[in-house]
Order: sequence, then C-alpha cells, then structure tokens
Amino acid sequence: MPELRRDPVVGYWTIISTERSRRPVEYRPAEISEERSCPFCEGREKETTPEVFAIRKPGTFPNGPGWNVRAIVSKVPILSPESGFERYGEGMYDLMQGVGTHELIIESPRHDHSLDELGAGDVEKVIQVYVQRMNELGKDKRFKYSLLFKNHGLISGAARDVVRHTRSQLIATPITPKRVKEELEMTRKYFSIHDRCVFCDILKQEAQGGERLVLQNDSFFAFCPFASRSPFEIWILPKHHSADFCRLEPACFMDLAVILKECLAKIRVLLNDPPYNMILHTAPYPHGDKEDHWKSIQEDYHWYLQISPRLTRDAGFEWGTGIYINPTPPEDAAHLLKETRTIR
Amino acid sequence: MPELRRDPVVGYWTIISTERSRRPVEYRPAEISEERSCPFCEGREKETTPEVFAIRKPGTFPNGPGWNVRAIVSKVPILSPESGFERYGEGMYDLMQGVGTHELIIESPRHDHSLDELGAGDVEKVIQVYVQRMNELGKDKRFKYSLLFKNHGLISGAARDVVRHTRSQLIATPITPKRVKEELEMTRKYFSIHDRCVFCDILKQEAQGGERLVLQNDSFFAFCPFASRSPFEIWILPKHHSADFCRLEPACFMDLAVILKECLAKIRVLLNDPPYNMILHTAPYPHGDKEDHWKSIQEDYHWYLQISPRLTRDAGFEWGTGIYINPTPPEDAAHLLKETRTIR
Repeated sequence: MPELRRDPVVGYWTIISTERSRRPVEYRPAEISEERSCPFCEGREKETTPEVFAIRKPGTFPNGPGWNVRAIVSKVPILSPESGFERYGEGMYDLMQGVGTHELIIESPRHDHSLDELGAGDVEKVIQVYVQRMNELGKDKRFKYSLLFKNHGLISGAARDVVRHTRSQLIATPITPKRVKEELEMTRKYFSIHDRCVFCDILKQEAQGGERLVLQNDSFFAFCPFASRSPFEIWILPKHHSADFCRLEPACFMDLAVILKECLAKIRVLLNDPPYNMILHTAPYPHGDKEDHWKSIQEDYHWYLQISPRLTRDAGFEWGTGIYINPTPPEDAAHLLKETRTIR
Repeated sequence: MPELRRDPVVGYWTIISTERSRRPVEYRPAEISEERSCPFCEGREKETTPEVFAIRKPGTFPNGPGWNVRAIVSKVPILSPESGFERYGEGMYDLMQGVGTHELIIESPRHDHSLDELGAGDVEKVIQVYVQRMNELGKDKRFKYSLLFKNHGLISGAARDVVRHTRSQLIATPITPKRVKEELEMTRKYFSIHDRCVFCDILKQEAQGGERLVLQNDSFFAFCPFASRSPFEIWILPKHHSADFCRLEPACFMDLAVILKECLAKIRVLLNDPPYNMILHTAPYPHGDKEDHWKSIQEDYHWYLQISPRLTRDAGFEWGTGIYINPTPPEDAAHLLKETRTIR
C-alpha cells in the first residue's frame, strides 16, 4: 500500500510506493507502446479494470464497445481506497496511510485523437464525465479533495506503462493538498482586505486591457496570466463567480468544451504539439474543511483550468527558490495564440 | 532587463525575460554543443566574460590559462546588477526590476570531467570558491539571498546555449525567495516548540536508526531524507549546528569535498550518470532579514546540500497538489547507494 510521509522541515507530503520498490534500472526512459497494444481502445474493454462510469450509445453494455467516454480505476493507483486511514508517528516523523482513489477518464474510443481534435459535442461529454466523477468521489467522506488533471505527451513520475491514448486522471486525496490550501488561504486574505474575489478582479483587469486575452465566449474567459510560470500558459475562468467546478451547470458544458478545445488546438498548432499539463483548480469537498471555512470559500475562491505547455524544464534555480523563469512574456504569448488559426 | 512579476493569487514571483522574447520555434530541444566549441575550456578564457575570481597556479594571469577553478558572470544572466531596484504596480499587479547577479563557477579546466571525477583536492578548491563568491556577493546590500546550485546533465529553463563542461551557478536575488522563507518560518516554528533545531533532531534520529544513512565523516552526514521527493535524493548536513554556509571553516572544506565527491560518484555509478540538481540551502544574508530574525535564524536553521537525481518528471499531480510521488523508498535507495562501490 502506498504511504504518505511528511517532510519534517517544511511539512510537504510525499507518496512513497513501499509495496514494490522501483530499482535503478527501471528508471530508464519508458518506450511509448505500439498502437496495437493499447488497452484503452474500443473493443479492448476487457483488458482494463471494470468501468465505473461511461457515456454510451443506446443499446450497448458496460465493459463492451459503443462508448464515447469511459471512466475506469487505474491499474497502478497512486492512492488506493483499500488502504487504511491511519495516521501515526515514527520518532519525529509523521506518516499516513495512502487512502484515496485514482481514476482514468478515457476521452475517446479512438487511439489517434487528441482531446482538441474531438468534436465539440464529444468534448462536452468529457466535461460531463469530469463533473459526474468528481461529484461521485465527493460522496466518500474519507476524501477531502480530488485533483483532475491531464498529462499530454508527458511521462509522469509514476507511470511505467505508457500509451498515448488521450485521457485525464482524477485522484482523490485524504488531505487537502498543501498547494490547494495555500491558494485558498491567499484568496481568503485578499477577500478579507477587498471584499472581492481576487479572480473576479483579475478577470476585470484582463478584460479591460485585453493584451493577455486569448479567447472568450459567453461563459468563459481564457488568457495568459500576468506572472505565467510556463511560457504560453493559459488559464480558463468562468466569467460568473463560482468556487466549485462540481456545481457547473450542464448549460455551460458546451461553452467550456468549445473554449477548451480551441485553446488546446491553438497550443498544438503554434507550438508543434508540445507536451502539456492541464490542471483543474477547484474548492475542496464540503467535508474537506470546517463548515464556516467552506462557506467562505464559496465567496472568496474561483475555480479555473490551468493549461501549461512544458517547453522548459525546471531545474536547480526553480527548485531552490520557487521562482520560475519564463522566457516569453505572456503578452507576446497571448498575441501569438490569438493569431493562431486552427483547422476546423 | 528582466522583470519580476508577482502572481496576484498565491504570491509567487516569476522572472519574465522582457528584453528579447523567445519565439515558439526556439523551444525546440537544444543540441549539446560539440566539445571543440566549449568556451569554458582552458585556453579559451578570452571567449567568456572576464573572470571575477579564480584559483590559479603561481605565475599565471587572470583571463589566461593556468587555473583550477574560475568564476565568471553569465553571458545570459537571469538577473543583472545593471538593472534598477524599483518596485511598482500595474493595476492590481506587482512588479519589481530584475536586479541581481548570475555567476558561473567553472569547476575544472578540463572538459571531460564531472565534479565527482576530480581529485578531492580539486573539489576542495571548488568549495573554497563557493564560499568566497557567496561572501563576496553578500557585500552588495541590494542582494538579500544567493542561491548556489548545479544542474548536471540538465537543460534548464533559461539556457539556450548548452555545453557539458562541469560548472555550478550562483544567482543573487533582490528578495529572499518564497521557498527559502517557508523553510525559515517552519524551522523557527519547530524551534519555538522544542527549543531545538529540527535538522539537529533529524541528524540524531538518522544516526540512531541508520537505515537511511549513505555516508559520514568527522564533519558531515549524508542520508536519503525520510520524505524524499526524488528517488535516490541525498542531503549532506554538517554534524555541528551551523545556519550559514558562508561561515564554513576552511578546516572543513576537505571533509565536505570528500563526502560530496563520493555521494555524486555513487549516484553516477548506481544510476548510470543520471541528470541531477544540487542545491545549497543556507541562511539569507544578514541584511536580508530584520536583525533579530537573522539572529534567531542562527540557532533555528541549519544549512545543507540537497542532491536530487531527476529520474522522474513531475507532471499534473505534482503541480496541482504539491505532493510528489517517489517510487523508491529512501531506505532502499540508501541501502543501494551505500553498497555501491566507486572507482578510486
């Protein structure tokens, strides 16, 4: 079972895979598997764990073909629901059992499509599954937070078997992660001074200036943030204040699908299909915080999607200081992204 | 001139290169230059900026051959001493001019050696230069902190021209970076509860258990930290409490050289010369903090060298949560490193 260990100096948590230790030779770069061996393709449903949810064509059955989007539990979960919930000490060190869950959301039955290459209606279905799964995992009171993310073209730390098939990941955690807490604390501080949500203020300033705007529609606004850590980074924010992605109205799914698809397509065309991370920043589950805290989160926090192309590699300076170096000003990035024509 | 921009949400700073924006095509992976075109090799001193310090053989002259270790200013500095010191706002956003300095410490006149392949006496000279340069930069009251680090085998975010020649980097910053502040705050908190330095406590617990010990000598202790974020990560700590690397006694230079060389050699042999970051964690300059703060740092902080092989790549989960995933428990890593024989 995975084990969470707290660094005794700064207090961050690390997930240590104690079950089977990876040996030095196993860190050699992984090969991208051949297309024919992809278990996420339609028709090979029996090779994955059973689906926990799917959007399917009428008349088709679970774990068979005929689906549009399919959610399954990872075969190599980072955190597992079978793990205990115990917290304990080892001398001065703190540990926690690695309870949680790790799902994959397979965004298309076809192997050769990126998320942005799907039709807008198909991306809308992906968003529907995001909302459904996040709400579903929130029913388990052991989980305080769940992180939705996507590693496109990236071999992440934990993955050993790598296939290209387009998918997102959803990991529920037994703690509200440090980075999320930090964001919540700072937005609360801003609200306590200004009585306004910091993101709503950002939206207003970005809409006025417009030099970092990439795209917008009725419900959403996409721009390159002022202090972007990654070159060509984009944030997509709902225009109307909302702290919790789980409460996204179905009427807005299509607007989000359209803007997300177009932002990803612009990045693919302009930057020659670079690796990227997509990360959803949203409020913790209601039982993930004290009740009055959670109520105040509703007014001082604002959910958003962060898309960060990984064109640079952070190294000693970034790790040592927390200061990132971005060689392309976000104004230039936004201008280039805005000008980029995608094929429709 | 580089510009520092503050993220309005969480408050981290990003260095934005506004002088010359890097275009999309310039993010294609850089090629490692041919050996013959390396400006850091002995005999090609005229191709670099003038040296700011060097350890030289008797009878040789600055900016000519005959040196062991040579410090120069980077041709593409991340921060520059010619920049102003102004802080200003742009609507709700905060900016700061990018004052600082960026030096390279070339660790050997020869191109084909890694730091751990130098003789112990040569590594001792490198450490002497580290201490000299850090103290020298501390005389400039505009600099609050300086970060010493080394990116071995890594193409970092800012580098465009890449050569393999072994070197470290030293960057002085106009602010005490967020990540450093966080460490100082947390160690102070620990001290305020226990009246002991957290690192001294870690040393004691690690010395007793021994399962994460890699190496030790009279002055230093090297181990794999309990909550290692990177597999095979090593921390080297002075056994006697000391917050400030700048005050390292010359009598300890050789002990540090020996343990550093041996740790790096073990990593090279065991993991097949992987890329790694080495980062020095030390106290800010005395004028970098209020006087009473700086005095308390002397008792509650403890400097250390962090060596992190980069075998995994952090992706969406790590960025979104701040929780890292380490697939090799530090106990296993320490055992393997301890067993690894290096050629002498």
